[in-house]
Amino acid sequence: MRAVDVIARKRDGAELTADEIRWFVRGCVTGSVADYQAAAWLMAVYIQGMSQEETVELTRAMADSGQVLDLGELAVRAVDKHSTGGVGDKVSLVTTPIAAAAGVIVPKMSGRGLGLTGGTLDKLESIPGFRVDLSATEILDQVRRVGLVITGQTPDLAPADGRLYALRDVTATIDSLPLIVSSILSKKIAGGAPAIILDVKAGSGAFMTSEGEAEQLARALVEVGTRCGRRVIAHVSRMDQPLGRSVGNALEVREAIETLQGHGPGDLQTVALALAAEMIVVAGLARDLAQGETMARQVLESGAALAKFRAMVVAQGGDEAVVDDVSLLPTAPIREIVTAPVDGYVSVLDAGTIGRALIQLGAGRQKKDDAIDRRVGVVFHRKVGDHVAAGDELFTLHLANHNQEAHARVEILGAYRFAAQPPRAAPTLGRRISIDA
Amino acid sequence: MRAVDVIARKRDGAELTADEIRWFVRGCVTGSVADYQAAAWLMAVYIQGMSQEETVELTRAMADSGQVLDLGELAVRAVDKHSTGGVGDKVSLVTTPIAAAAGVIVPKMSGRGLGLTGGTLDKLESIPGFRVDLSATEILDQVRRVGLVITGQTPDLAPADGRLYALRDVTATIDSLPLIVSSILSKKIAGGAPAIILDVKAGSGAFMTSEGEAEQLARALVEVGTRCGRRVIAHVSRMDQPLGRSVGNALEVREAIETLQGHGPGDLQTVALALAAEMIVVAGLARDLAQGETMARQVLESGAALAKFRAMVVAQGGDEAVVDDVSLLPTAPIREIVTAPVDGYVSVLDAGTIGRALIQLGAGRQKKDDAIDRRVGVVFHRKVGDHVAAGDELFTLHLANHNQEAHARVEILGAYRFAAQPPRAAPTLGRRISIDA
Repeated sequence: MRAVDVIARKRDGAELTADEIRWFVRGCVTGSVADYQAAAWLMAVYIQGMSQEETVELTRAMADSGQVLDLGELAVRAVDKHSTGGVGDKVSLVTTPIAAAAGVIVPKMSGRGLGLTGGTLDKLESIPGFRVDLSATEILDQVRRVGLVITGQTPDLAPADGRLYALRDVTATIDSLPLIVSSILSKKIAGGAPAIILDVKAGSGAFMTSEGEAEQLARALVEVGTRCGRRVIAHVSRMDQPLGRSVGNALEVREAIETLQGHGPGDLQTVALALAAEMIVVAGLARDLAQGETMARQVLESGAALAKFRAMVVAQGGDEAVVDDVSLLPTAPIREIVTAPVDGYVSVLDAGTIGRALIQLGAGRQKKDDAIDRRVGVVFHRKVGDHVAAGDELFTLHLANHNQEAHARVEILGAYRFAAQPPRAAPTLGRRISIDA
Repeated sequence: MRAVDVIARKRDGAELTADEIRWFVRGCVTGSVADYQAAAWLMAVYIQGMSQEETVELTRAMADSGQVLDLGELAVRAVDKHSTGGVGDKVSLVTTPIAAAAGVIVPKMSGRGLGLTGGTLDKLESIPGFRVDLSATEILDQVRRVGLVITGQTPDLAPADGRLYALRDVTATIDSLPLIVSSILSKKIAGGAPAIILDVKAGSGAFMTSEGEAEQLARALVEVGTRCGRRVIAHVSRMDQPLGRSVGNALEVREAIETLQGHGPGDLQTVALALAAEMIVVAGLARDLAQGETMARQVLESGAALAKFRAMVVAQGGDEAVVDDVSLLPTAPIREIVTAPVDGYVSVLDAGTIGRALIQLGAGRQKKDDAIDRRVGVVFHRKVGDHVAAGDELFTLHLANHNQEAHARVEILGAYRFAAQPPRAAPTLGRRISIDA
């Protein structure tokens, strides 16, 4: 087989065979397919698309391109959770300890933030000492001892995805359904869990702005993941305004811990419990979502979920004191409260605008290698649907220096729209997509 | 400007601006555009195409990417000649000395053979000592002294084309009209001649098998070249059977010299005179093609064209004795005459089959870096339209060793078809395409 022939077939819109896809992906890892050949192929895939059959084979080939974690006898209760990411999306930090406290085994490998979407690893690194570079051996050991691990992808896991993703980033081939689906699922499949709960976000603060596109992605993930032998359930939920009240790495960890302590914002708790219930049911620990949610609520209220979070922090070398006292998390030196300029109802709190402002403040990354400041962010006191009087506290900026003040105030205030009438209530939970086995 | 944005625009089918194209091409030379980015862009261009405006800008940008030869006061009479190549196409070796003998200045930079199409450089290197690696200074000096030079492209000439062509070869992006047009014309424009005569071949023994595609390429070359400020005339001619009687590097040089000596095959002489006439007219040395052809015939018959060829051989370090005695050219150790298996008229002598057989024999290249054997080839004694009786000599194989015999005999014999009735005569000269200034 020759790379140039496989490229030519995809260029001409042909459906590649399983052999061709496996050969090409393997070549990307061994180096027999050059970067420029992979790049040309990615562009051909972007423009010509891939059938579901091809996407399944691509996913499998990428999952098999390196180590596949063997969870042994724990696999039967193991569930992975993935979010496509959004502004202020700290759901994983709350959902996974709840599920783990209810008996689910959670071997979760996360990524770093890029663009609007924050990264779970970046958030967790706000906890002094917390390690996200566990080896495969350490992951398996912690899964056995704690039942919960959130760490970075090991280099041996789906290395073909690592190589192709780096190329996609610089060749304008990110936004392709088969490439997105295979990238997400190959890592999850190599992670070893037989079930995967997906949170696909749609809206101005998410990777997919249109709900139709997000639903298309969710369906493709469920269908392809199911054909790869995994139980996959996806929720499509809105990301028009940030979830919870806080955006910014350390501030979001603080809010997650507060939620595990039992006094988090309602929308965050609702989503976290719903997804935890899915994880509990799919692990076979509850017979339906109602029972799953009851179990989730119980471990949240009993403090078992917080204890599980603490156990993970300790196991990964983090300072467990932050679990009892969130003020020990890194804090920005400057706090500035901004008040409402008018009377009225908050009708819009645009997550996309907030995400872009936070990148400017250094809380997020424009490019992959940008350094970030985990302390900076915003806490929102009024969100969509709330009534405000002019002069009421609207949000608090957490800033690194005074130079950031004027710009941040204007930008974040610009995310608000006010109206005389209350807006229609938007659902916190979205559409659920699954294929019954 | 960012490479990824230019790639994304072409990916989405947008028309790139002159600035974008110039920036991208410049980046390919300086290295600020990476190989994998150029490869993704080439695939996007391949699939989405380019407008004529874009192709003009791409051609200009590539021509300007390195040195542009300045022919000074000689430019007014300078004409370049280019063939898209075909099996046994040695026209350049005959046409350019004729034109030069009539006063045309011919600074011709040629390429090496790849696939079916032989390369003028490979053929000329059959002449012992002949150099094809002249520097720009040597080219300009020889143009001044001899009026004729055929050499390889200098590395400084259109370096963007060198880089992009190498990538196209391994990324399945060769066969794209805007990329072919800009590649051919950018080198010719950088070569400094204000006029270019193109010989676009169509048929089984050419790069373009369909006449429609060849004509489309010819039109695009003429239109884009004209918009780049050059006088461009193209001939579209058939390459169904080889031109002349010989195929193989040294054998073709031998036939070219014999034609310049006045006893070459008629079809080769006809095409060579017609193209030489075009060169003479476009250089302003004759008022029309009839007068141009008369002049061409005169310098051929007077021996002036052969003398010009000799002067080039001498100037480029070659052994001039071969011009008087073609038996001094390298010859294959084995000659085997193959006879006609049946009585009848030759109805087909398929150039594509012959070209593929010669690659197998080592006369041509499958891949760019393959070594070639300049001695091997075939001389055809009967071509399309000729009547044969069973046992008549059909062709002579010139082989490197006896192992090649059986296979070569079967393959080349397989290029022949015989019929009871004579085939319809096909025109030797094709359609002429030009835009009047």
